[in-house]
Amino acid sequence: MSRKAVVLLSGGLDSATALAMARDEGFECYTLSFDYGQRHRAELLASERVSAAHGAAAHKVVKLDLRTIGGSALTDDAIDVPEEETQGIPVTYVPARNTVFLSIALGWAEVLGAQDIFVGVNAVDYSGYPDCRPAYIDAFERMANLATKAGVEGNKLSIRAPLMDMTKAEIVERGTELGVDYALTVSCYQADEAGAACGRCDSCRLRAEGFAQAGLADPTVYA
Amino acid sequence: MSRKAVVLLSGGLDSATALAMARDEGFECYTLSFDYGQRHRAELLASERVSAAHGAAAHKVVKLDLRTIGGSALTDDAIDVPEEETQGIPVTYVPARNTVFLSIALGWAEVLGAQDIFVGVNAVDYSGYPDCRPAYIDAFERMANLATKAGVEGNKLSIRAPLMDMTKAEIVERGTELGVDYALTVSCYQADEAGAACGRCDSCRLRAEGFAQAGLADPTVYA
Repeated sequence: MSRKAVVLLSGGLDSATALAMARDEGFECYTLSFDYGQRHRAELLASERVSAAHGAAAHKVVKLDLRTIGGSALTDDAIDVPEEETQGIPVTYVPARNTVFLSIALGWAEVLGAQDIFVGVNAVDYSGYPDCRPAYIDAFERMANLATKAGVEGNKLSIRAPLMDMTKAEIVERGTELGVDYALTVSCYQADEAGAACGRCDSCRLRAEGFAQAGLADPTVYA
Repeated sequence: MSRKAVVLLSGGLDSATALAMARDEGFECYTLSFDYGQRHRAELLASERVSAAHGAAAHKVVKLDLRTIGGSALTDDAIDVPEEETQGIPVTYVPARNTVFLSIALGWAEVLGAQDIFVGVNAVDYSGYPDCRPAYIDAFERMANLATKAGVEGNKLSIRAPLMDMTKAEIVERGTELGVDYALTVSCYQADEAGAACGRCDSCRLRAEGFAQAGLADPTVYA
């Protein structure tokens, strides 16, 4: 019987690659996305497509209204998504988002009896978002093992961040080897309803550079 | 200017006491409750009453559908709330609930610039729920400081669990000293629409014992 894993899926390039890597390791994958008040629903449709394309055992979308607390360009319409490079922690940072998403993944992992949770955080994001750093993932894993039945019963939970030390180009190369169809994914912070990307936000820039550096064709549809 | 604190409010006895203690320390309190698919809405109404009675600066209710992942008598109608004492981790345990709630509190604390988060977990719950133990709270705090802007910028976040080492009787005594009106609170896992308690579930039993041991009148309305 294959082991179960919960895989956080945002609809973007990174988490699609993390899912492909989890499948490649032989996990039965349970994909999880969030309808959290984000600017566009294109990423939820993308998550569904990616989950199905990689043969996940189940896909769940948890509703959670992060607009109630606001504080980010992604959850507050009064804050614009920047279209030029910014210094420090960007306004697209959603306070505690990875912690909230990993926590709910942890709950589902307990219900399923899964001991592995995959998340597509990586070193490129590290410079800007505090909750994409290795020390953070380690601290979350330690907390998770104290938080849950599994931890109490000695079944260690692992937070798996296989992209952590990879560049965008390496991620795209690895995913392409594993058969990820990046045309299914949407990375843009302000994609239109059909999922077409703006080509100007941070996330679009990093994605385009990844394909360019890897020397691979970029299947992104731009608006 | 008084310091801000986010206070998790369940509508029950413990979190009402934690709020009174935060106010007593001089914090400007921002109370947070969750509409997470629980069995009854009486606790949401209780939270609102308790928040108002203690002069909170704001009260938010975040919607989050934990029924999507299920796994607990409190979020799955197919699992009954036990009416006798059980061994081990009870079925009323909601997988990763405290972690999810604290994570969202962390997000709001970041938005507000609050460095303190109060949570009413205590030693009486400790025996059953893994996420009520001191080691868990410490691990969450460590993770929280790596997860957030505040942590990166050196403004330490504290997870405050002032009831941790108190018995139910001590909690009720302390709250009474601080003017908590426990008639406003609802602890029962299966209260009716009006907030009347069943008197039989674990939570009702612990609450009644607390008042009895403290030698205080129990204002709970039973169905």
